[in-house]
Amino acid sequence: MKKTIAILTGGGDCPGLNAVIRAVVRTAVNCHGWRVLGIEDGFEGLLDKVRWRELGLDSVRGILPRGGTILGTSNRGNPFSYPQIVNGVPELHDVSDKVLDAFKELGAEVLIAVGGDGTLKIAQGLYEKGLPVVGIPKTIDNDLRATDVTFGYRTAVATVTEALDRLHSTAESHHRVMIVEVMGRDAGWIALESGIAGSADAILIPEIPYRVDRLCEAIENRRRRGSRFSIVVVAEGATAYAGKKVVQQTAAENLGVERLGGVGHEVARQLDGCLDMEIRVVILGHLQRGGSPEPFDRILASRFGVKAVELIARKSFGRMVALRGRQVIDVEIAKAVSQLNLVDPGGELVGTAESLGIMVGR
Amino acid sequence: MKKTIAILTGGGDCPGLNAVIRAVVRTAVNCHGWRVLGIEDGFEGLLDKVRWRELGLDSVRGILPRGGTILGTSNRGNPFSYPQIVNGVPELHDVSDKVLDAFKELGAEVLIAVGGDGTLKIAQGLYEKGLPVVGIPKTIDNDLRATDVTFGYRTAVATVTEALDRLHSTAESHHRVMIVEVMGRDAGWIALESGIAGSADAILIPEIPYRVDRLCEAIENRRRRGSRFSIVVVAEGATAYAGKKVVQQTAAENLGVERLGGVGHEVARQLDGCLDMEIRVVILGHLQRGGSPEPFDRILASRFGVKAVELIARKSFGRMVALRGRQVIDVEIAKAVSQLNLVDPGGELVGTAESLGIMVGR
Amino acid sequence: MKKTIAILTGGGDCPGLNAVIRAVVRTAVNCHGWRVLGIEDGFEGLLDKVRWRELGLDSVRGILPRGGTILGTSNRGNPFSYPQIVNGVPELHDVSDKVLDAFKELGAEVLIAVGGDGTLKIAQGLYEKGLPVVGIPKTIDNDLRATDVTFGYRTAVATVTEALDRLHSTAESHHRVMIVEVMGRDAGWIALESGIAGSADAILIPEIPYRVDRLCEAIENRRRRGSRFSIVVVAEGATAYAGKKVVQQTAAENLGVERLGGVGHEVARQLDGCLDMEIRVVILGHLQRGGSPEPFDRILASRFGVKAVELIARKSFGRMVALRGRQVIDVEIAKAVSQLNLVDPGGELVGTAESLGIMVGR
Amino acid sequence: MKKTIAILTGGGDCPGLNAVIRAVVRTAVNCHGWRVLGIEDGFEGLLDKVRWRELGLDSVRGILPRGGTILGTSNRGNPFSYPQIVNGVPELHDVSDKVLDAFKELGAEVLIAVGGDGTLKIAQGLYEKGLPVVGIPKTIDNDLRATDVTFGYRTAVATVTEALDRLHSTAESHHRVMIVEVMGRDAGWIALESGIAGSADAILIPEIPYRVDRLCEAIENRRRRGSRFSIVVVAEGATAYAGKKVVQQTAAENLGVERLGGVGHEVARQLDGCLDMEIRVVILGHLQRGGSPEPFDRILASRFGVKAVELIARKSFGRMVALRGRQVIDVEIAKAVSQLNLVDPGGELVGTAESLGIMVGR
Repeated sequence: MKKTIAILTGGGDCPGLNAVIRAVVRTAVNCHGWRVLGIEDGFEGLLDKVRWRELGLDSVRGILPRGGTILGTSNRGNPFSYPQIVNGVPELHDVSDKVLDAFKELGAEVLIAVGGDGTLKIAQGLYEKGLPVVGIPKTIDNDLRATDVTFGYRTAVATVTEALDRLHSTAESHHRVMIVEVMGRDAGWIALESGIAGSADAILIPEIPYRVDRLCEAIENRRRRGSRFSIVVVAEGATAYAGKKVVQQTAAENLGVERLGGVGHEVARQLDGCLDMEIRVVILGHLQRGGSPEPFDRILASRFGVKAVELIARKSFGRMVALRGRQVIDVEIAKAVSQLNLVDPGGELVGTAESLGIMVGR
Repeated sequence: MKKTIAILTGGGDCPGLNAVIRAVVRTAVNCHGWRVLGIEDGFEGLLDKVRWRELGLDSVRGILPRGGTILGTSNRGNPFSYPQIVNGVPELHDVSDKVLDAFKELGAEVLIAVGGDGTLKIAQGLYEKGLPVVGIPKTIDNDLRATDVTFGYRTAVATVTEALDRLHSTAESHHRVMIVEVMGRDAGWIALESGIAGSADAILIPEIPYRVDRLCEAIENRRRRGSRFSIVVVAEGATAYAGKKVVQQTAAENLGVERLGGVGHEVARQLDGCLDMEIRVVILGHLQRGGSPEPFDRILASRFGVKAVELIARKSFGRMVALRGRQVIDVEIAKAVSQLNLVDPGGELVGTAESLGIMVGR
Repeated sequence: MKKTIAILTGGGDCPGLNAVIRAVVRTAVNCHGWRVLGIEDGFEGLLDKVRWRELGLDSVRGILPRGGTILGTSNRGNPFSYPQIVNGVPELHDVSDKVLDAFKELGAEVLIAVGGDGTLKIAQGLYEKGLPVVGIPKTIDNDLRATDVTFGYRTAVATVTEALDRLHSTAESHHRVMIVEVMGRDAGWIALESGIAGSADAILIPEIPYRVDRLCEAIENRRRRGSRFSIVVVAEGATAYAGKKVVQQTAAENLGVERLGGVGHEVARQLDGCLDMEIRVVILGHLQRGGSPEPFDRILASRFGVKAVELIARKSFGRMVALRGRQVIDVEIAKAVSQLNLVDPGGELVGTAESLGIMVGR
Repeated sequence: MKKTIAILTGGGDCPGLNAVIRAVVRTAVNCHGWRVLGIEDGFEGLLDKVRWRELGLDSVRGILPRGGTILGTSNRGNPFSYPQIVNGVPELHDVSDKVLDAFKELGAEVLIAVGGDGTLKIAQGLYEKGLPVVGIPKTIDNDLRATDVTFGYRTAVATVTEALDRLHSTAESHHRVMIVEVMGRDAGWIALESGIAGSADAILIPEIPYRVDRLCEAIENRRRRGSRFSIVVVAEGATAYAGKKVVQQTAAENLGVERLGGVGHEVARQLDGCLDMEIRVVILGHLQRGGSPEPFDRILASRFGVKAVELIARKSFGRMVALRGRQVIDVEIAKAVSQLNLVDPGGELVGTAESLGIMVGR
């Protein structure tokens, strides 16, 4: 009987997931003659009623340039802590044995888990319970230390840069301060790189708390020198100096609607207190996850997919693929998760931004 | 002495304004040997301290593909109702004579006013006071009846369509309802055309009040048929049925920040009451005004600019250029302004959308 | 039994074909409950071995933004003049009865033929033999007089304009003459509109023979005024003045390879004789047919598809859909084919180009 | 008196050159208070009649997203081997002393030379004659070993990938073999990376000679498996196996026109001998140099510009900036030039392509 491997995608979607799936299927089928099962909607698809389909070469035709994931994804469905109603009361249960059973039933021998921190931790948990697992990291924020860069990230930077290019002309025509809120809860990579590429005037990131008075001053200085508009890029996790953590998304979350007034609007309110200029806020939100992956992301995702199959062929389980320099390597999942890759406030990239005249927090 | 004409751009910016300016300068200078003055920041540039610069062929080099307006624009500065502080009290005064004086001082004989309803009304007022004026219509919403279509509109539709393409993959991967708020206070053209082009599942426009229960039903029906996501495009002016006008932008406007919770979030709240699905809101906002004009807009704007100079050469003043069928014609400004071009609820375009299975309001 | 209709796409592919197919399927299935068969590879799919598949709602999911045609297309397979080997000798035979038989076998009652001149003439021939037929025009060159504009055309203009935007920076940096060959054998619409939108310095189209000496002069004049580069857009059908028809594609066609030295290279040779500047040629070729349709094309194609189904419902056969002003109408196929829509050398669009300082032939 | 530095761009243009210039000007002016002179048209601008202009902050406003170089560039003007007419006979002379004189006259103390191999060798020559020089590498082909990657390269890959995406739909609709010729005389990086990203079926690069029979076989195999089209990406420097070097650009070069029949057409002829399919050739040519730099290139170019100014501040001359891992470092120009960065035929990237089912030469 043919060897059978399964693949699932978990967490927020990200450009490049389909490229991973395609690379896994092509390599497994063409080079090894294996069978590939696609689990639907992340770990959720392995619980309750198992949802899956076989992935042949035809199933992955034409998906390389497409965003999203043909398998669907979910943030729910942690089998080690799964919500169940017991006597009318919702409780969290460990149902990981059901996952192992589901695997047996499917006849699948190995799981490739593509996802972020949450997904990889679950994968590690299953590995510790005996399931042969290979991990592929996915974080659009590029905040995982174990890999130099993750797929999806560059596409997000390209999307934000394009938006900044667009907003420049309108900000300039109206002499406005344009505040652009972008992704990045813990790490400011998207804000920093797209801010440099999109010619921002100030960049606010979680790693470097900003001071409202200095931000106002910087914008005023620009105006005095004849630049009557300014563009401020703000990562969602940016905070003002002095421990004054910006409060985000309250009412919004209660009704399943994101961000009625996130950090972008908070910064607008702060600037409105010290500037006599029109201020506008643009929240890029889900636009940053969508779209066709740019070439680098398609290639990196393909390399990760090929490497994951190679690890299975070598029976190297409990490991995660990663990019180190120009090489795709593999590391222990256990060591890789939860180690954040943050912007170095004293590093060259922040220095480059500052040399270009961009205020980066502080 | 050389004949001297002046040009200004007023109201919200719009892709194609630079193409107009370039066409006016190239035609006036090359074909007629005139001098062109660019008034800065709309009518504001003619008041207080007159701001202008001469526009030679070099000043318009390379601006065709750029969004915004090199002259700047402003929503303020109506010379017939200009805010002035008298004895510490702000009052609105008619300072239109100052504009006529400014013109004399500049040595300019004719004004080309590029703008929307507000700008064109001011232009008409000045024309009635004796200033030779030619108007060029600009409305990104395409809501002016006197012309078949306006430049900037198609670029906005392209921007929204591209955003919808992007959002499809992420909506699909997560089985979400994605609500996309787009421009259109009075007319739903942008929502309707980009909704058809971007494969929306429902389109809410000002011309056709929507019923929340039917919208929920439509989304539920999709889910039952296996499409576990839906994309709803909402024009800012869309209203729910039964006279229940959606309240927009209140607190937001007070602090110069736009839309803390506009119609997009209102629709999200309504759907949250009847659907058990994740709902996300994306507000495209200023992204729709920015960016390089698409080819049709570049061409239409160029044709408008050339035609405006031709009207001046023929001494046809008080007139506005317009597109009728395939021809650029001219109409009386007086008759053209304020006549809205609305979507016909029983027209072919709405019918096409419905045949495609898109719910359009109702 | 369900009413069954068939659809095929013939001739060169064109952005928007999938939008037509999708609109036909959605309208036929959702609004009328009909069955739709997709014939593969144009009329070729109806001959020899009939190739077709049923098109349900699922078959057209996600195809709206995609270029090409999911049905395939072909320039071969004219059933009124079909190549057959008789006694070892290739002959052209009328096999149109086989098409009618194939239709009976399929149980299809009506044919929607989407294509250009060639395809529509065949459709008309079949209609005259009794097959109920509806035509949808397709010509990327926009050269059909019966309709104001055809889908695919604007996408081609957008592709060429984007290429011109790109080439500007490199032409400018190197002080080169850049010759860009674009589609347009009989009509120069693509060259003219993209030339205006992409800021060409000269546009050569079939409708207006050009004079080499004047073209050289125009480029020299630009250089004298300080613009050390020029961009010349050339339609494939452009010809030099004095009946000296530029000879195209000879050796190339013999080996199934297009254009080893088409009109672009011919113009380069001519300019090389009178200019002392570097000259480069770019042939856009098949790039112009590809890519995602821009919004207008998606909408027009969708409207055409919806209208075609409506004609069938009304039993109006032998007719072709068309755009007239803002309305989608229908005309007799017999009268519509072969009437060319050419650029008017004395018209407003050429005049606009000239006012902008662009040399258009002559 | 202010310290004065000069900058020039030499060789073929490349997306990111303007970002370099902007970063140099902003850093030199803002951080150090220096004066920056821009030499026009590469080393040519330093000879004969010295052409330059001062670059202030205003001169570099808005240039970050633009392709090309505002300074112009040239492949001519090697001062160590400069063509001069002596007694009616053209001779090559060493006029490098004139460059040093020009420098003195300008009052410039340091030269930043941005360019490829040729430009950097000249820079090194001038450095050896005593001119303080800093180099910034530029090669769109990414074929320089001293730096991990060069700016412009990723934009070229993005342009080619986008073209491949476009061509897919048309190749597929017509069942054609589409041959796409891309840049890469010595190194196949562009072909390889864009081929992987754009889902090519075969990639021909200089590093791995291809065998015509195997290429035909691969395409035939695809057809047998139901994929009736194939896309072949060919680098200009690709050669067929058996020392049979493909002859390129002969007649073309004589008349200053590029490539009447380059390697793309050669491959077409070869395939035409063994395949019974329609074959089409697309030569991307100068499109690959143009266009707005993608974000990574904007950032890398900015980092290089900032670093170059830093080297001057530290008086580290005769050195070139480079990327090594995540760091911008500096290396000796003398050691850096002429060391080619080639694709490793046995490396992971080629292996990835092959695992995906792409034939890479051989």
